[in-house]
Amino acid sequence: MDNRSSRKQKKVCPSLRGHIWIEGSEGTFLGYGRIALLERIREYGSITKAAKSLEMPYRKAWLLIDSMNQQVPKPYVVTSAGGRRGGGTRVTPEGEKAIKVFWKIHAKFQKFLMSQAGVVSSICK
Amino acid sequence: MDNRSSRKQKKVCPSLRGHIWIEGSEGTFLGYGRIALLERIREYGSITKAAKSLEMPYRKAWLLIDSMNQQVPKPYVVTSAGGRRGGGTRVTPEGEKAIKVFWKIHAKFQKFLMSQAGVVSSICK
Repeated sequence: MDNRSSRKQKKVCPSLRGHIWIEGSEGTFLGYGRIALLERIREYGSITKAAKSLEMPYRKAWLLIDSMNQQVPKPYVVTSAGGRRGGGTRVTPEGEKAIKVFWKIHAKFQKFLMSQAGVVSSICK
Repeated sequence: MDNRSSRKQKKVCPSLRGHIWIEGSEGTFLGYGRIALLERIREYGSITKAAKSLEMPYRKAWLLIDSMNQQVPKPYVVTSAGGRRGGGTRVTPEGEKAIKVFWKIHAKFQKFLMSQAGVVSSICK
């Protein structure tokens, strides 16, 4: 354990990392994975394509969206069936707002992490 | 997906959660698990007992400690062999400082999370 001869004699100057998520009454409500999924649905207009682009099984993507939709008064993702070109899936204004709020908090979180650099580096000394 | 009849009509008033860790050049350097282990070693004076109290295999505990020790100039845990009562394992002053610094940052992080409550709850509206 205290094998000084093999220990690297370099100083660790580590960095603070972390992640955040928004927790609802039924577990995770919004996190990086769900945000990525919403953004891909916005991009592709399709859960199938969004899931594929994230290498996520369709079933998992559907469950994540359903979980979000079930927890809010107005859904984040809606699918309109029919029409000449078939149904379309889109992110609602409420979903867009959630994406925006999440990234806003994430940006502040990154600032927080950086603000602690001095405290973290005190471990090096 | 947009099955309004089955959707719960309650508002989600979610809370922001997260976790943090200190990352070194070789991956995680300090996180909640490693801090808990250091604290248990301090309590029990034994890696075996510390690991057992956390329901962690001894081998895993040893590897976590070795990983920390390898990344710093002065080890966080030392084992002294021999003596009438056998060897003892203890957390060094450097290890104690790391524990203190980690919890200090954690406390600030909790304050940060709470400070975002207003932004998070804007999703509810």
